Amino acid sequence: MPGRAGQDTYWQMKLREDRLQMRLDRLSEFTVPGRPWTRRAFTERYAAARDWLQNEMALAGLTTRVDAGGNLIGTLEGREPAHGILASGSHIDTVVDGGRYDGILGVVAALEAAQAIAESGKQPGHTIEVIDFLSEEPSDYGVSCVGSRAMSGNLPTDLLEYTNPSGERLGEAIRRAGGAPEKLEGPLRGKEELAGFLELHIEQGRVLESTGTQIGVVTNIVGIRRYEIVVTGRADHSGTTPMNLRQDALVGASRIVERVNAQARELQASNGYLVATVGKISVRPDAANAVPGEARLTLEVRSDSEDRLAGFLDPLLGWAEEAVCRQDALQIEVRRLSATHPTDCAEPIVDTLAASAAELGFSSMKMPSGAGHDAAHMARLCPTGMLFVPCLDGRSHCPEESITMEDALNGARVLTRALLALDGTAPKGAVPGKS
Amino acid sequence: MPGRAGQDTYWQMKLREDRLQMRLDRLSEFTVPGRPWTRRAFTERYAAARDWLQNEMALAGLTTRVDAGGNLIGTLEGREPAHGILASGSHIDTVVDGGRYDGILGVVAALEAAQAIAESGKQPGHTIEVIDFLSEEPSDYGVSCVGSRAMSGNLPTDLLEYTNPSGERLGEAIRRAGGAPEKLEGPLRGKEELAGFLELHIEQGRVLESTGTQIGVVTNIVGIRRYEIVVTGRADHSGTTPMNLRQDALVGASRIVERVNAQARELQASNGYLVATVGKISVRPDAANAVPGEARLTLEVRSDSEDRLAGFLDPLLGWAEEAVCRQDALQIEVRRLSATHPTDCAEPIVDTLAASAAELGFSSMKMPSGAGHDAAHMARLCPTGMLFVPCLDGRSHCPEESITMEDALNGARVLTRALLALDGTAPKGAVPGKS
Repeated sequence: MPGRAGQDTYWQMKLREDRLQMRLDRLSEFTVPGRPWTRRAFTERYAAARDWLQNEMALAGLTTRVDAGGNLIGTLEGREPAHGILASGSHIDTVVDGGRYDGILGVVAALEAAQAIAESGKQPGHTIEVIDFLSEEPSDYGVSCVGSRAMSGNLPTDLLEYTNPSGERLGEAIRRAGGAPEKLEGPLRGKEELAGFLELHIEQGRVLESTGTQIGVVTNIVGIRRYEIVVTGRADHSGTTPMNLRQDALVGASRIVERVNAQARELQASNGYLVATVGKISVRPDAANAVPGEARLTLEVRSDSEDRLAGFLDPLLGWAEEAVCRQDALQIEVRRLSATHPTDCAEPIVDTLAASAAELGFSSMKMPSGAGHDAAHMARLCPTGMLFVPCLDGRSHCPEESITMEDALNGARVLTRALLALDGTAPKGAVPGKS
Repeated sequence: MPGRAGQDTYWQMKLREDRLQMRLDRLSEFTVPGRPWTRRAFTERYAAARDWLQNEMALAGLTTRVDAGGNLIGTLEGREPAHGILASGSHIDTVVDGGRYDGILGVVAALEAAQAIAESGKQPGHTIEVIDFLSEEPSDYGVSCVGSRAMSGNLPTDLLEYTNPSGERLGEAIRRAGGAPEKLEGPLRGKEELAGFLELHIEQGRVLESTGTQIGVVTNIVGIRRYEIVVTGRADHSGTTPMNLRQDALVGASRIVERVNAQARELQASNGYLVATVGKISVRPDAANAVPGEARLTLEVRSDSEDRLAGFLDPLLGWAEEAVCRQDALQIEVRRLSATHPTDCAEPIVDTLAASAAELGFSSMKMPSGAGHDAAHMARLCPTGMLFVPCLDGRSHCPEESITMEDALNGARVLTRALLALDGTAPKGAVPGKS
């Protein structure tokens, strides 16, 4: 069966499918009841899941700590500290009604890799770290990738002042997660400290599945801009305010939602990869019998081209000036919530991942990542790469997100082999039999 | 000063501006901190406000009870039970971020009228009731005018099964408010029991203010239809789902919001009074990086014509069939939440209110009510009328809602005089001096 790794190398024997499965299952239990799968960063449920994970890391033979950015780190000491650290990981927080594997697989697989290497009895040259990054998903504070931003020195202190709807500052929330916000003025790791970072993730798209490919080797990660758009009109009683006297903020917001969609479709058709999404909306007063006086939108733009990213907002606002502000007597305010640039993966890592997949007999393809990831921030610190495994029907950020255990294990195998290859201790000729 | 009532009649001496003001102020203190003015029906805060109000009724010399519909009723016994009951009141619940006077003035003024009559020492022929109706504003259970519907036999038992977002049934909530949902199969009052119902309310529009008129005498009350529209698409990761593969429920919902607005504007321009509003919207998953898979809207349509009311939805859905369902591959489900018919006020009451205003030297005009009110349900039980006082800039259902104490007192005076006129005990020739 092609792609089933053989049992002929010391570390492959130690990679255990049942343990990988158990940890994925166990983490899925930390969810808001009736809202699968919801484990929002900074909640008590999230803290409980991390306590469990920290314990699993310790059981796996790793020493554990939480860094100043609130990242949970498990460490397997290497023989040669001067070689630097090979790190792998992802995140265990989810969006609301999110999935069971987005981020989670990358943490559990990295832990499985480290544990398999530890249990093999051959100490690696490099120290190996398993990282569970704090709050990768867009948090209630309007910032995503909180932990990997902090680690790589990309969490400007003004972001620490952002607040959640209850008024808590992000800095305070990081402290609750075990971090130390006062230490976040620069990167938490020196440039020489890390020799490489690898992140395994589900594809969250349909390319691997539709082409029947087992492993995706990521070449670059999109840049992301997020904005909050507030449309302000006038709250009025719905029954006593004639249509022509209204300043209905939701009508203006609706025009913006449509325009964002139309503008992105046009750019995508003519100009390469770009997507734009209004994923959040709320109105005030939010009553059946009140004309909305305020509408709040979150606009997100993604592209692998910095120019396309930077060029999206201005034409939208230029259009809105006339079509929303003047026509409907509304005001628009825009605040940039976050901005990441498109990031290339490191060529030696890309090559190592591709070679590792090939050596294990898996089909693979090079591809860009349309989703942002902690790896995009880690690339500021060290040579970084990512690998994808297929997910069912491309579904992600929804309860239906699903993968096969075979694909999960394939990903863990390529990840483990690539770590060992980078360590210089990958077994020679360990291509499994294609029986 | 024109319109200032004189001090020449026994009951006018007893109408106290300071007491009216004190009660309006005191009720405004029962609000969610930082969200003026929010006192949602069925909350603990609302229950506390009603406890306070019940005590005020008792201090005013009324006997108090809560009926099976959860309405708080204060009673001043009349000399002749056979004459029936003259009732007046409104509601003290608010929308979120609502006003200080909508509903509240009608309860406080009715209490002031009853107290002034009680303190005058002349027992009226009719028994007088002051009613604080349960939950007039759209409740979290998708039903408005809960108490006046219950009293008038217009709360079908299937509405008692409606639930709030926490899953509580409306019937249970009515029980928490002191009602008895099992007794709500028919009207709570016999048709002969009530001789009349009067409701004082702020206009919630700009007609009185812009024409410099002191009192509005309502001739009819609009009918209201409310619908929930659920647009279903497919939740996907925003970064990995190209624009052309999306089924974005919010994009479809936005088209509907715009169409509702355009269709209502067209009908209003060509066809008499009609307004239509999308006042509530929510999406799932509601994350910056997720394509919305579901959007929920509340559509409200109001008109004084039953035909215009009934004719709004079908063309909208016909249009949506093509423009939303087919074009964007979305599904739409519509559920009717509630329906009230346009209601005419009783002519003898309209005449009494107009005459009472004139006798007190106030300017008045006849006008329709664009807002729905408890009075529209009470009209099923007995001759019913309403009077309006001006409010600042027509603002209502918003924190800026405001009235002058002079207008509040004017309204209370007309209300009191009209009650006495209907009782046959209004003082003769009591027109105040226009000094």
